[in-house]
Amino acid sequence: MTDNFKDYREALLNAVGQGDKTSATVEKLVQNGVENVFFVGCGGSLAVMYPAWYIMQELSDIPSFIFNAGEFNKLTHKKFGKNSLVITASYSGTTPETIEAVNIAKSKGAATIGFTGKMESPLSKAVDNVFVNNAKVGATDANLIMLYQIVFKLMKEMKDYDRYEDIAKCLNTLPDSLVGIKESAEEAAKKFAETYKNEKIFYTLGAGLGWGEAYAFAICILEEMQWLTAQPIHAGEYFHGPFEVVDENANLIILKGEDFSRPLIDRVIDFSKKYTDRLVIIDTKQYPLPGVSEAYRGYFTPFILSAVLDRFANCLADERNHPLSTRRYMGKVEY
Amino acid sequence: MTDNFKDYREALLNAVGQGDKTSATVEKLVQNGVENVFFVGCGGSLAVMYPAWYIMQELSDIPSFIFNAGEFNKLTHKKFGKNSLVITASYSGTTPETIEAVNIAKSKGAATIGFTGKMESPLSKAVDNVFVNNAKVGATDANLIMLYQIVFKLMKEMKDYDRYEDIAKCLNTLPDSLVGIKESAEEAAKKFAETYKNEKIFYTLGAGLGWGEAYAFAICILEEMQWLTAQPIHAGEYFHGPFEVVDENANLIILKGEDFSRPLIDRVIDFSKKYTDRLVIIDTKQYPLPGVSEAYRGYFTPFILSAVLDRFANCLADERNHPLSTRRYMGKVEY
Repeated sequence: MTDNFKDYREALLNAVGQGDKTSATVEKLVQNGVENVFFVGCGGSLAVMYPAWYIMQELSDIPSFIFNAGEFNKLTHKKFGKNSLVITASYSGTTPETIEAVNIAKSKGAATIGFTGKMESPLSKAVDNVFVNNAKVGATDANLIMLYQIVFKLMKEMKDYDRYEDIAKCLNTLPDSLVGIKESAEEAAKKFAETYKNEKIFYTLGAGLGWGEAYAFAICILEEMQWLTAQPIHAGEYFHGPFEVVDENANLIILKGEDFSRPLIDRVIDFSKKYTDRLVIIDTKQYPLPGVSEAYRGYFTPFILSAVLDRFANCLADERNHPLSTRRYMGKVEY
Repeated sequence: MTDNFKDYREALLNAVGQGDKTSATVEKLVQNGVENVFFVGCGGSLAVMYPAWYIMQELSDIPSFIFNAGEFNKLTHKKFGKNSLVITASYSGTTPETIEAVNIAKSKGAATIGFTGKMESPLSKAVDNVFVNNAKVGATDANLIMLYQIVFKLMKEMKDYDRYEDIAKCLNTLPDSLVGIKESAEEAAKKFAETYKNEKIFYTLGAGLGWGEAYAFAICILEEMQWLTAQPIHAGEYFHGPFEVVDENANLIILKGEDFSRPLIDRVIDFSKKYTDRLVIIDTKQYPLPGVSEAYRGYFTPFILSAVLDRFANCLADERNHPLSTRRYMGKVEY
């Protein structure tokens, strides 16, 4: 295990260790009344919310909504009020739109939960319920673990879906499993990086519980961190416009999970392989999760994709000699 | 007025003429009970739903959701049931995912409304309540008029928002106003086409009531109809990834409406103009709508954008010698 993976495992262990705290928080919130949930964030911290939002669409009677924080702040949602719960995240804890969203929520009497990297941050101070991941690496996956704890506990308390304990047990196995997945993805990641290092345009495809990863890999990794054009395309939308740009030069990164969206991804692959060889398919089925039974694997789609894509990102950055931390504007100029 | 605009005006007049029918349909549906609304479609027929969905987020106590039809069919949404209303569209009336969505909805006892181009189509036969636009051109704008009739009437009947009559009066003025806007946008459209005819990558930016247009112009016009790479970027997300790809060669098409999202667009423009001159800004404020009072102009954002972008699309297609009707795959091969 490399040092990097040690830190990663540490971050995930810390997240699974928050189970009692997330649980107590949800019990308190439900006692006060939760009528709806708003997932609010920006960029990668919005993308990480998508799986939780999709799970609630499928399993919960509580309406839930997902919004970019900047838009949330301007929209004045009719159903947002004192019995709403805002769940948000910001690694730096300083994203202005996110802090503003929390302050708007609090001014309306809504409950707030925030995930952030460090205890000393504006987001930590702003939210009622803060969860700190203290992660040097793996902040996103750590947040996703805590998000799942919260959402499954919430659905249990609301009598929507009673498998919180099962899911919590599965989550506890992730620190080891996901390190194993990162290790086993290294070869595919290196091949990807060598093959695609000179390409300038990518299309990432996902749907359902893989959508957040397709979105984040395009806009956060390839665009923000590699300065490459990368369009995230919803697999269900592919055949209604975007597929017309695909020819033998198109580079497609296709994320195939084990949730309800799998048939949509199959359809994208079946079509695309006829017209381009430049397909990179990440199928979560190729990666074992010993602690997760078949019935629940679908929910763990984003964890596997995130672990694998982290290796893809790192190998590509190495091969291109463009460190993932390089920025032109973010944190450097006014915007 | 060119012949093309005559057909367009005809299509819109037909749509405003549906007011009594949309109104009666909504009254009947509300009597039967409407607990939530699902906007469901694919590509351009999904994009046209976004403004109606945003308006309901802002004004209605009824939860509403928007889904790609393929995803809707696989998701099994927990809140979907016999008191749900599905609103969908398909110009051809043959989109398989959309027909399937309607059949799923009906099997669960939900109400269905469908917009389509011709009376004789599978969608017409499948839905309980069909609205035919009979449009040779302007089908999207015609659908949007009927969507607004339905959504504002629904909100009136549900005691959410009482301005249905005002909005209906505004809608009635669109056939003339939008033809005027198309005529006055011609010069800007020609300039756009001449300047950008050789470009291969575009980014379209929008938010709120302009989001659907930003999305559709990218995936339906530039990708589907012109085979150019075009990434739709939500203005609120721009600063959390995508803006790092912007340098002096980046081509940005920025849609600035008059709804709640306007400040988000201003922020995108203020930043981007420092780093590239290749900005195309379509500001709805530049286009008069004599029949629409200042208080309601925000809601009419997508109509103005659609009218202007239609000219942009046509001029670009002419300049590039690539007719908007050219397809590689759609309707030509199996998928």
